[in-house]
Amino acid sequence: MSWIEQRPDDAMDGGIGAVSVGELIRHVPAAGFREAMARLGAAVHVITTAGPAGSAGLTATAVCSVTDAPPTLLVCVNRRAQSASVIVENGVFCVNTLPHAQASVADFFAKRTGGKSEAFESSDWTTL
Amino acid sequence: MSWIEQRPDDAMDGGIGAVSVGELIRHVPAAGFREAMARLGAAVHVITTAGPAGSAGLTATAVCSVTDAPPTLLVCVNRRAQSASVIVENGVFCVNTLPHAQASVADFFAKRTGGKSEAFESSDWTTL
Repeated sequence: MSWIEQRPDDAMDGGIGAVSVGELIRHVPAAGFREAMARLGAAVHVITTAGPAGSAGLTATAVCSVTDAPPTLLVCVNRRAQSASVIVENGVFCVNTLPHAQASVADFFAKRTGGKSEAFESSDWTTL
Repeated sequence: MSWIEQRPDDAMDGGIGAVSVGELIRHVPAAGFREAMARLGAAVHVITTAGPAGSAGLTATAVCSVTDAPPTLLVCVNRRAQSASVIVENGVFCVNTLPHAQASVADFFAKRTGGKSEAFESSDWTTL
């Protein structure tokens, strides 16, 4: 069975909570960490939200499937990012996984080109 | 710039906390969720730990790079998994990202073949 084809790890179907392993006992240099992470391919997603607090979006790679009972995705967003408070206020978000042809959408939402309003104008969006 | 080659999202260098978006306002069927997740390629990792509580390991795909300040990885582990309590007691874990040639190691730690002790015996391990 291919790892790509299989369903998310069944072992994750269970209680969800957060635990920190506490103090780092080994120092990992930031440069080496970045170098290691840069070698890992990962899907690129645009996290969007819409609701009373308005529309917002950001590009993210730190997205995990946690469990399918209930269907749960985990998204890492910087609390200082403009979009973070909008997502929390709206209480909903959508994970848009991009094909390669939509790299420009990722660039827009990563603020590499243009502004946020341009980002939403650059392609068609549907509110679920 | 390729998304694969770039460093982890700079926007993630900041305060870390956990927020739930609360009640699901749309029902996502579990079968559709699994089907969607099955289309996403992702690296396969074996999460290992060693220390006073013993050695343990499990196969995981729900691993995210969160920030490089300090270097931080997020790993989703079922609290009911045997390895979970060992990781928490030891307070340390190692993320071993596997190449395709080590698919058998992933199978061992996912308990698809053999037991846990066999899993560690099946290849060479170093304690950091």
